[in-house]
Amino acid sequence: MKMIFAIVQDKDSNRLSSEFVNANIRATKLASSGGFLRSGNTTFIIGLEDERVKDALRIIRETSHSREQFMTPPINLDSSLDGGETAFPVEVQVGGATVFVMPVEQFHQF
Amino acid sequence: MKMIFAIVQDKDSNRLSSEFVNANIRATKLASSGGFLRSGNTTFIIGLEDERVKDALRIIRETSHSREQFMTPPINLDSSLDGGETAFPVEVQVGGATVFVMPVEQFHQF
Amino acid sequence: MKMIFAIVQDKDSNRLSSEFVNANIRATKLASSGGFLRSGNTTFIIGLEDERVKDALRIIRETSHSREQFMTPPINLDSSLDGGETAFPVEVQVGGATVFVMPVEQFHQF
Ligand code: NI
Ligand code: NI
Ligand code: NI
Repeated sequence: MKMIFAIVQDKDSNRLSSEFVNANIRATKLASSGGFLRSGNTTFIIGLEDERVKDALRIIRETSHSREQFMTPPINLDSSLDGGETAFPVEVQVGGATVFVMPVEQFHQF
Repeated sequence: MKMIFAIVQDKDSNRLSSEFVNANIRATKLASSGGFLRSGNTTFIIGLEDERVKDALRIIRETSHSREQFMTPPINLDSSLDGGETAFPVEVQVGGATVFVMPVEQFHQF
Repeated sequence: MKMIFAIVQDKDSNRLSSEFVNANIRATKLASSGGFLRSGNTTFIIGLEDERVKDALRIIRETSHSREQFMTPPINLDSSLDGGETAFPVEVQVGGATVFVMPVEQFHQF
């Protein structure tokens, strides 16, 4: 038995929940924040048998890994420049997961 | 020293808190959710000496174990059937606790 | 790799967050409560290399240790005593941290 702590960005947390349900992995979600300046994140606690750890890690990596995304920034309406401003899409980094696998000495379900 | 993670249903969490206080066991509560479709739950973190783990497990089991309960479902006022509807009590499963006991290498109180 | 769970009072949690950022230690905050009658507290989860555990513990102790503070209680306006009430500062205990260091078997960043 192991416990996995996975800290992911809020934007990935719903999809990750669904993937866990599909894989029949029970995950508990804790509202969390911080880690430098990163905004809201979600901490998943997952308890599972040793031989299923690999599956869970694969799901977390596939669903939440850090990746680049093109985003169009909002146009600045207060701009003092005359007309013609265009918002160009910029590449931003989203996602990312920090994962700890920890030993469990006893597991009970009451 | 061990750390116990206990995930229980919200409906059992107040009574469990009280039982821990009575037993002089310090528990920290984290708001949590999920684990399949189960609604709100509470995660307790409890740090305690090895020889007290048994007591804590007994308290969690007694207070939060899964059990059947009779519940009267609300009467459906929009029912198209003519009069005479009776809401019969149905048996539902409530409670239940998932518990992990984990090793602790250092414990400090500052 | 170790995981540190540190439970501190809400009033110390912002300063502790800043100290972790200064020390380049990534900490995730969980909203928590309880532990006897103590009001709101915050649980920090910190994953870090074995050789940095000491630094993190020193920061937690310095920022959040239990200490006495003089506090002026609010004057009771409904007092039935005639005038001249003075609110004398009283010494109260604030702060305090409960800290667990736990083993980590695998650490991943995706
Ligand atoms: Ni990808
Ligand atoms: Ni019973
Ligand atoms: Ni001091």
